[in-house]
Amino acid sequence: MATTATDTGLQLRSTVKSEGVVELSVVNVPTPRPRSDEVLVRVEAAPINPSDLGLLLAGADPTTAEVSGPADRPIVTATIPPAAMPALAGRLGQSLPVGNEGAGVVIRAGDSPAAQALLGKTVAMLGGAMYAQYRCLKAPDCLVLPPGTTAAEGASCFVNPLTALGMVETMRREGHTALVHTAAASNLGQMLVKLCRKDDVGLVNVVRRPEQVELLQGLGARHVCDSSAPRFMADLVEAVAATGATLAFDAIGGGRLAGQILTAMETALTRTAEGYSRYGSTTHKQVYIYGGLDRGPTEFSRTFGMAWGIGGWLLTPFLQTIGADAAQALKERVAAEITTTFASTYTKEISLVEALDPEEIADYAKLATGEKYLINPDKT
Amino acid sequence: MATTATDTGLQLRSTVKSEGVVELSVVNVPTPRPRSDEVLVRVEAAPINPSDLGLLLAGADPTTAEVSGPADRPIVTATIPPAAMPALAGRLGQSLPVGNEGAGVVIRAGDSPAAQALLGKTVAMLGGAMYAQYRCLKAPDCLVLPPGTTAAEGASCFVNPLTALGMVETMRREGHTALVHTAAASNLGQMLVKLCRKDDVGLVNVVRRPEQVELLQGLGARHVCDSSAPRFMADLVEAVAATGATLAFDAIGGGRLAGQILTAMETALTRTAEGYSRYGSTTHKQVYIYGGLDRGPTEFSRTFGMAWGIGGWLLTPFLQTIGADAAQALKERVAAEITTTFASTYTKEISLVEALDPEEIADYAKLATGEKYLINPDKT
Repeated sequence: MATTATDTGLQLRSTVKSEGVVELSVVNVPTPRPRSDEVLVRVEAAPINPSDLGLLLAGADPTTAEVSGPADRPIVTATIPPAAMPALAGRLGQSLPVGNEGAGVVIRAGDSPAAQALLGKTVAMLGGAMYAQYRCLKAPDCLVLPPGTTAAEGASCFVNPLTALGMVETMRREGHTALVHTAAASNLGQMLVKLCRKDDVGLVNVVRRPEQVELLQGLGARHVCDSSAPRFMADLVEAVAATGATLAFDAIGGGRLAGQILTAMETALTRTAEGYSRYGSTTHKQVYIYGGLDRGPTEFSRTFGMAWGIGGWLLTPFLQTIGADAAQALKERVAAEITTTFASTYTKEISLVEALDPEEIADYAKLATGEKYLINPDKT
Repeated sequence: MATTATDTGLQLRSTVKSEGVVELSVVNVPTPRPRSDEVLVRVEAAPINPSDLGLLLAGADPTTAEVSGPADRPIVTATIPPAAMPALAGRLGQSLPVGNEGAGVVIRAGDSPAAQALLGKTVAMLGGAMYAQYRCLKAPDCLVLPPGTTAAEGASCFVNPLTALGMVETMRREGHTALVHTAAASNLGQMLVKLCRKDDVGLVNVVRRPEQVELLQGLGARHVCDSSAPRFMADLVEAVAATGATLAFDAIGGGRLAGQILTAMETALTRTAEGYSRYGSTTHKQVYIYGGLDRGPTEFSRTFGMAWGIGGWLLTPFLQTIGADAAQALKERVAAEITTTFASTYTKEISLVEALDPEEIADYAKLATGEKYLINPDKT
């Protein structure tokens, strides 16, 4: 197959400057030449996940975005709150590529059989620098999509699908039998509803608005609790009791929700207990915080006994913990079900240059539920 | 050996009443007759630990204590804040014995060889109902104290010594190499200083007053950080960096300290790291909350990456986790070092009836650092 790559390609970059701004730009970089075991992919689709925004915007306020430079190579600067700067010391002055995952077509390959076998295939990729026209990576790191799958359909094979599978797998490995999930109307949350239905896993969905209850019920969710409702805690206790959930994954992070979930679990556990235990239930109750939709402080009253834990959870360390074979099995399940269980929907497709438009930035930075952007670096 | 037990003995009781008060009393109960494998102990010393106060006072306000009944059988009532009542539903109306641990002399024994072998021995005990003249228990549950040890010396063999050993053992089993401890000037904290010195374990002591720094330094503590000092966070980071501590045991519970410790650990870990990691250090940082000196909410800003955990820690589940043999080995170490590493000091010895004196209650309920009461049920 003939190469269609040019000698250079566009790549989106993010740089934090010591004066307290983040600078976003699109730069022209040399197209890498694949080594023997590598392939070159023409990236055609890469989602903007919440996990991409931290690296991209570095906590900057999107409403402060200002544009300079020519229209086809804009440079955007936005102000970072001073309190966020110390945590960014490690990336000061570095022009960083962005984009955790994406998909595209293999247009060049090294001479190894494994690399050559991928020529012309549509593959999904994980590993950063996906907001770029070209991405070079090792052949075994490509996830080959089933024939007929488009790059847009396969762009979100890793972050959301593996996170959903990782939650269920963590549940099984840590001895729990059902889950609570917050911000459950998200793309990931909808995927988790479908996955738990298919795998017959009890799931309590916590959402923040009444209309999201209907959305999830429409997907077949059995337990949906609206945290804006006056009877939220009572609903949550009932749903936790009905499922037996003692593990939660929380995308909110800040505020009181993590503690409320532990309290609901403890209430459900102790109301059937016999006799008084001054230390509460002996069943371990766990909340993993995997996101930070609320960046404010986390606060909880310790009204859930002593057998509890709150902690951080990240996909990559989880995959390392379970080992390469188990991780590969999860990835192959994603590829097989990428247009069903693990299908993603996008509200807008934009080019690399459009991703620097302040109006678009303000829009995708909102992390509005149900809205998700797809960058197509092949679009001009 | 002749029995010196009377047919009945005094026992301290705590009852939560539905009208929102706790009632403390001393009642006369029949002296149990030991079965074949049991012994009867004349209790001569039982400490008032922070962990006893929850069961004893049920969260009641000591300043509301009122006495009725005769001087030798007083009945004390104190008001429980309404917010604390729901959590006490499981013990409503039950007259509960109190006292986690104690020591005394075996005065009667069942006919089994193991029980007979204990006659006349001074033993330490764990298991509740120690604020009583007599306590019957299984022979294997007695921890025989070295010859010459008094009951007062052996009264605190379990809660504090096993907790200190449990912290160091948890550290080793979970892959950490040094510890942070809060409220470190407590009896337990002083014991942990001696234990970590003896076992060559790095220890960062967090105290709340300048004079406590000197107290712990006098015991040989190398790292003592005063949370009331303006440079507390800087001191904490230095001490955590010097020891490499990634595990903390927190007796405070409420407030911001747990989060500050995680932040100090993260700062110490990342300041030597190369390159920027947007998710922070990959080293797991853990705080176990094992007490509640501050009963207010726990609050933290998530400024310590994603590899972190906060959770409850209790001695009894820990001992169950490590198994009977490992737990027995820890107990035997305590007995062997009960007058050195694990020695406790008491500020006052009181009788069962004196334990119901409102002035004494107000005093021991303060949980003042360095003050510890010993109940001697044999004292009249």
